[in-house]
Amino acid sequence: MIDQSAIAKANDAAEAGLRRDYDALGEHLHRRGIDIGAIKHKVAGYGVAVPSWGVGTGGTRFARFPGPGEPRNIFDKLDDCAVIHDLTGATPSVSLHIPWDKADPADLKGKAEETGLSFDAMNSNTFQDQADQPLSYKFGSLSNADAATRQQAVEHNIECIEIGRAIGSKALTVWIGDGSNFPGQTNFTRQFERYLDAMKDVYKALPEDWRIFSEHKMYEPAFYSTVVQDWGTNYMIAKELGPKAFCLVDLGHHAPNVNIEMIVARLVQFGKLGGFHFNDSKYGDDDLDTGSIDPYRLFLVFNELVDAEMRAAEGFDPAHMLDQSHNVTDPIESLMVSAMEVQRAYASALLVDRAKLKGYQEENDALMATGTLKKAFRTDVEPILAMARLEKGAAIDPVSAFRASGYRAKVAGERPAVSGAGGGIV
Amino acid sequence: MIDQSAIAKANDAAEAGLRRDYDALGEHLHRRGIDIGAIKHKVAGYGVAVPSWGVGTGGTRFARFPGPGEPRNIFDKLDDCAVIHDLTGATPSVSLHIPWDKADPADLKGKAEETGLSFDAMNSNTFQDQADQPLSYKFGSLSNADAATRQQAVEHNIECIEIGRAIGSKALTVWIGDGSNFPGQTNFTRQFERYLDAMKDVYKALPEDWRIFSEHKMYEPAFYSTVVQDWGTNYMIAKELGPKAFCLVDLGHHAPNVNIEMIVARLVQFGKLGGFHFNDSKYGDDDLDTGSIDPYRLFLVFNELVDAEMRAAEGFDPAHMLDQSHNVTDPIESLMVSAMEVQRAYASALLVDRAKLKGYQEENDALMATGTLKKAFRTDVEPILAMARLEKGAAIDPVSAFRASGYRAKVAGERPAVSGAGGGIV
Amino acid sequence: MIDQSAIAKANDAAEAGLRRDYDALGEHLHRRGIDIGAIKHKVAGYGVAVPSWGVGTGGTRFARFPGPGEPRNIFDKLDDCAVIHDLTGATPSVSLHIPWDKADPADLKGKAEETGLSFDAMNSNTFQDQADQPLSYKFGSLSNADAATRQQAVEHNIECIEIGRAIGSKALTVWIGDGSNFPGQTNFTRQFERYLDAMKDVYKALPEDWRIFSEHKMYEPAFYSTVVQDWGTNYMIAKELGPKAFCLVDLGHHAPNVNIEMIVARLVQFGKLGGFHFNDSKYGDDDLDTGSIDPYRLFLVFNELVDAEMRAAEGFDPAHMLDQSHNVTDPIESLMVSAMEVQRAYASALLVDRAKLKGYQEENDALMATGTLKKAFRTDVEPILAMARLEKGAAIDPVSAFRASGYRAKVAGERPAVSGAGGGIV
Amino acid sequence: MIDQSAIAKANDAAEAGLRRDYDALGEHLHRRGIDIGAIKHKVAGYGVAVPSWGVGTGGTRFARFPGPGEPRNIFDKLDDCAVIHDLTGATPSVSLHIPWDKADPADLKGKAEETGLSFDAMNSNTFQDQADQPLSYKFGSLSNADAATRQQAVEHNIECIEIGRAIGSKALTVWIGDGSNFPGQTNFTRQFERYLDAMKDVYKALPEDWRIFSEHKMYEPAFYSTVVQDWGTNYMIAKELGPKAFCLVDLGHHAPNVNIEMIVARLVQFGKLGGFHFNDSKYGDDDLDTGSIDPYRLFLVFNELVDAEMRAAEGFDPAHMLDQSHNVTDPIESLMVSAMEVQRAYASALLVDRAKLKGYQEENDALMATGTLKKAFRTDVEPILAMARLEKGAAIDPVSAFRASGYRAKVAGERPAVSGAGGGIV
Repeated sequence: MIDQSAIAKANDAAEAGLRRDYDALGEHLHRRGIDIGAIKHKVAGYGVAVPSWGVGTGGTRFARFPGPGEPRNIFDKLDDCAVIHDLTGATPSVSLHIPWDKADPADLKGKAEETGLSFDAMNSNTFQDQADQPLSYKFGSLSNADAATRQQAVEHNIECIEIGRAIGSKALTVWIGDGSNFPGQTNFTRQFERYLDAMKDVYKALPEDWRIFSEHKMYEPAFYSTVVQDWGTNYMIAKELGPKAFCLVDLGHHAPNVNIEMIVARLVQFGKLGGFHFNDSKYGDDDLDTGSIDPYRLFLVFNELVDAEMRAAEGFDPAHMLDQSHNVTDPIESLMVSAMEVQRAYASALLVDRAKLKGYQEENDALMATGTLKKAFRTDVEPILAMARLEKGAAIDPVSAFRASGYRAKVAGERPAVSGAGGGIV
Repeated sequence: MIDQSAIAKANDAAEAGLRRDYDALGEHLHRRGIDIGAIKHKVAGYGVAVPSWGVGTGGTRFARFPGPGEPRNIFDKLDDCAVIHDLTGATPSVSLHIPWDKADPADLKGKAEETGLSFDAMNSNTFQDQADQPLSYKFGSLSNADAATRQQAVEHNIECIEIGRAIGSKALTVWIGDGSNFPGQTNFTRQFERYLDAMKDVYKALPEDWRIFSEHKMYEPAFYSTVVQDWGTNYMIAKELGPKAFCLVDLGHHAPNVNIEMIVARLVQFGKLGGFHFNDSKYGDDDLDTGSIDPYRLFLVFNELVDAEMRAAEGFDPAHMLDQSHNVTDPIESLMVSAMEVQRAYASALLVDRAKLKGYQEENDALMATGTLKKAFRTDVEPILAMARLEKGAAIDPVSAFRASGYRAKVAGERPAVSGAGGGIV
Repeated sequence: MIDQSAIAKANDAAEAGLRRDYDALGEHLHRRGIDIGAIKHKVAGYGVAVPSWGVGTGGTRFARFPGPGEPRNIFDKLDDCAVIHDLTGATPSVSLHIPWDKADPADLKGKAEETGLSFDAMNSNTFQDQADQPLSYKFGSLSNADAATRQQAVEHNIECIEIGRAIGSKALTVWIGDGSNFPGQTNFTRQFERYLDAMKDVYKALPEDWRIFSEHKMYEPAFYSTVVQDWGTNYMIAKELGPKAFCLVDLGHHAPNVNIEMIVARLVQFGKLGGFHFNDSKYGDDDLDTGSIDPYRLFLVFNELVDAEMRAAEGFDPAHMLDQSHNVTDPIESLMVSAMEVQRAYASALLVDRAKLKGYQEENDALMATGTLKKAFRTDVEPILAMARLEKGAAIDPVSAFRASGYRAKVAGERPAVSGAGGGIV
Repeated sequence: MIDQSAIAKANDAAEAGLRRDYDALGEHLHRRGIDIGAIKHKVAGYGVAVPSWGVGTGGTRFARFPGPGEPRNIFDKLDDCAVIHDLTGATPSVSLHIPWDKADPADLKGKAEETGLSFDAMNSNTFQDQADQPLSYKFGSLSNADAATRQQAVEHNIECIEIGRAIGSKALTVWIGDGSNFPGQTNFTRQFERYLDAMKDVYKALPEDWRIFSEHKMYEPAFYSTVVQDWGTNYMIAKELGPKAFCLVDLGHHAPNVNIEMIVARLVQFGKLGGFHFNDSKYGDDDLDTGSIDPYRLFLVFNELVDAEMRAAEGFDPAHMLDQSHNVTDPIESLMVSAMEVQRAYASALLVDRAKLKGYQEENDALMATGTLKKAFRTDVEPILAMARLEKGAAIDPVSAFRASGYRAKVAGERPAVSGAGGGIV
């Protein structure tokens, strides 16, 4: 999608400075007993999936302000995703959302081959009504009081599995908006029983080598109660369903102040961490760019992940995906920066001196223990990330390279302009 | 809109029970030294404005699930508002939103006369782009970095004033979504300076007998910072603008745990309480039905209002309006119930024995002081509200009467069905 | 403790008014198809345990301001508890805290017989260091990195069980403050493994007919992470320990905005609801008087409990206890009022028309469903509670009767004054 | 307090590595157009005040776990503060708390000269009762319903001013715990009127060249309402009192999710930012070590401060003080690390390319604007801080040097051990 020679040209200009920074960091890390090459190798091997819907401009219930060159369909979206991977080398796969991305599986596979991308988890949608849909999800989908509506939602999930099988996906992510807006609107227990029954039907349709991820969220679109409201309920679900069922953690789906890294640790400990939707938030499910509000929190999550990786925690194999809404930036740029933020958190967590940390923890030396994390966090790993990109032919500075490439202007010429639209409130 | 004889028939069936309840309550209140008739008189005189947009089904950024008979325009909306007032006798006025409700002022006035309604505060909209709008509000309106965009937003507000003058409104409510989604995206200070400058231009256009209400909100649609983020900034605005400027308090626009009734008291004390947008919320700006989640909080707000009313606090004259999003109920029903909840909170607050309360407060008798509020709150004032409705020809049980009336089926036959639409995320 | 004739005299003055209110309510409820006598019978049979420590004035980390007549020991405390039960008839049992209430079991039993009280769950204390304690809990107790410290904490819990056996208790409540104040201070996983191991040792010492309750709390005294931080972890604990292990829900121990009644429903559904610590809160673990801030939330919790009671949910038998800190009121008065608030929530929840509610839920009639709850909530059940008290020889108005009794002045004469003390910060 | 030769010896071992890191950073910053020497110069000139009470181990309402060598009085505390400044070179002044630190002013001045420290703002205490105090603050101090109690609190504040004058302080910080625990316990308006009247009396006693700082806090020790609950009320106070009155911002005293850096910007803009109490928090007023939970938030606060400094905002001259509770660490170590964290945030904010930032802001280039902040934040400025310390004779690694010094063991031998004490709940 992006002309390789343009990337190369931009890299040429930046390479000398990068090499100086990389060498200085290598020397510094060497004094700390860390081999920069080993870190770079791990970072280079790390990838995070991009959500197909992330390359379009997002919106709120108040409004949506589209930008130029909005993708018209899944094939445009895959083009945009390919740009992200070309420039960052960090996003080898794409997660599809059905029915938004519905297309002939052969065409999807062909496009994937052409763009060098693969398909991550499938996402079903039972939180909206589609034009041709017989029964409405206004009052819920998998937990609806009406059996036929639940069945429709089950079948949609099974269809997502089938599409996924055809294109090489190995997981289904189920997020529903089911809940209630008023005390008493639903009976919590009966609603959850219905949900579990429906999910068991979906689970039965899961191929042997697939996993199913249930995703919890505290609130929105339901504003009084939500069926899968927190990790406690999510864990119950994964236990009830069976060994192929896991919990997905979206960083923005928690109550204020909650210690998310601790939830991650608990799910790892009990073998039920399925994966992540990365993003950041300040107030609610803000879907802001990953690491943009609280980068240290992101690091602390990765500190848990690296800890589990290092001790080879049983059954530990989480899926990593970005899930953001880009309302005021170019979606391609935001996704590139966010993919690098995730890599950065991973790289920083790799720098933690875990032997020392363990020693401080056992001696209750809180100051030195936390200082051990801080030392890793404040080390600027940008040269490692940039060198990994350079070595795989991606851009030292992906945003500059993207802007220089003219890609946005090009697709804006090909894809018709979309006018501003109100959100749900009108 | 609703056949009076149908209301009368329904009332006939319920009247005997109501009279027994009313008499028993009257006797009980008499023992507490309270004249039930005086309370009923005040309740009967109380009214809350209905937002024109409230009679349509609301939505979230994920989806909107319309119901049958959605109003097509402001005239349909006024019909629905008239039904609410016919049945509750509690909502004599309607608050318009421009441009959604734009129409020939003469037609608006005619329809108001026909339906017996009047017009409350005007609401401007600079948080969405309209089809014919030259400059986008994607990056803000009254505080936009671009002077021409600010000027466009100023002119829109002035247009709202002009329409309002023509139809008898006496206030302009300004809520903007301006803010930022990323640290550094805007300079807080310059952005607020621009906002103040623009608002001063709007203020200049305000007729002598008008008021301008600025409305604060913690977040959404902006997710990192919001220009008018809390009552502190809102108060600064009202002070900067001048004596016709006041703060509007929406019950759902605050940080978690905030003591809203105390904010109300502060604004009353400093002469800057302009009015309310009533609704309820559990998580964020949920826009749930007033009093549906925490009815005691609503009572505590009214406790402040009645306190100010009783001591005739200087400059105290707040506007009262509902502002809710009805996603899973019939909007007419929700608005009727909510109008009655506001009345209920007012009636309950009138029952507080304020002389005793003051005594307990001065003696630091916390238990008896709070018990004085609780005693008023737990007294069931429904018979007072229902009797007030009965006596003014409204319905003892408005929801039952509405359902019996067949109004929804009738308008569903006249107004074309609207299909489900995605919210801002698609 | 309180002169029966004084109670009788006060009741005489109030009885006529009460009977009128009771009869009017009975007639009203009859019209709604509810037998007031049946409700009164259930309310009369309901009791909530009082915490022994609740009868002393509480404090914050900043200060404690004792009142007159502070109890000196468990025997004074039992006297105060007896007053509460004499006047309300609603608090037949007391929950002890070891070592604060340590005494000869025979003396404890004797005092209980004398006062007509029994003993509810035992509470251990490993969140403070005692004068004679060899190892400190500064860095944790049951999850401490040091095995000997964990063992000390285990033995303390076993001692609590032994004391409890001797005095007729049937349950142990374990709340610990273990956690961390800094990211990295502890390893979440190893810390939780240590906790589970230690709890298993306590569990082994549990008599056949006992239950063990683990209590979660989001934060405080640990301010970055807490071992038993939420109901998810709490549920894991109860599952790991075995069939005698259950989760205890303190209403003030949750993240902001969390839907507590839903957590209650989940724990009932999965057979692990052990009981409650009732109180109320606005910001954190404020330990305010039950129902003083959000009485509707308390009602919604009881709505779940009555729902489970009515359908005889398997294994449903929660313990009910108050757990409050009385900083500005007379503790006896606050506990009386709070016990009545719990009764009130129970009585109100009994008024819910559950057949209709179920119907509305199945039809997705959110408005009528929530209205069904609201109708029950707003019915003033005070006459039912007061009549139940009158009929069992307790006071129609316990606070007035207490004030008239002179009890506080009497014990203030017997118990030495305690001077104000700083909290933990000095 | 600390042997200079020991510091020198430790520095010798670390100096070579530091110089390499410093040079590499200098070269890197040079490429970004930044002169590392200029940054170092500013950092070296920066100082933050230490609170006298911070050198003792803190506690919660549940318990306090003292460490070895707890300071017995203000003179011990000043010794400890001197150690912090000797090793970090970043804390030249100490803030006293009356009556805790009451002593002969001449002795205080003498000790200050001896230790090379000066005195920052004075802190009054009307949130606790002292042994010899005639009237209790149980129900409030400056806002108490009783005039004599308010007068006592006013006089205490005036006494603090007088002590401060004698020792060279130039400011009084007033934080009160006044508020209420129950709805209705106080009348918000009358309570605030009393507070304002009392503060006006204190203000009158302020010397010409002094400032008075009022400090807001959302809750605790009052749990339903607090008189000075937020920056809005705080701003009203500063406006009512006059030109010597300013608002103090404690980073931990806000509602969940609140954008604190924006509050800072507003107070700067309206000329009322008095200063800071630095600390960090995850849940409430956790008083954790500065920058330990969310270092990016601390950076964003300093981003506002440097912005104001660079444009020489009118009346901008905030006081900087740490205010933390050290429950699980050595207080001297925590204060050293925290002082360096504040310096670090300042240094990082100095690296922001403000010309570019302004350009991005005016072009609404949100991605590059936020990236400009992130680039500054992720640059590891530790070599700049360490070099500034080295050059002023402080320690390259203050914690290591402190541990090597044996200071804690020495004072533990001189100062009697303090036994663990319960907090406010016993």
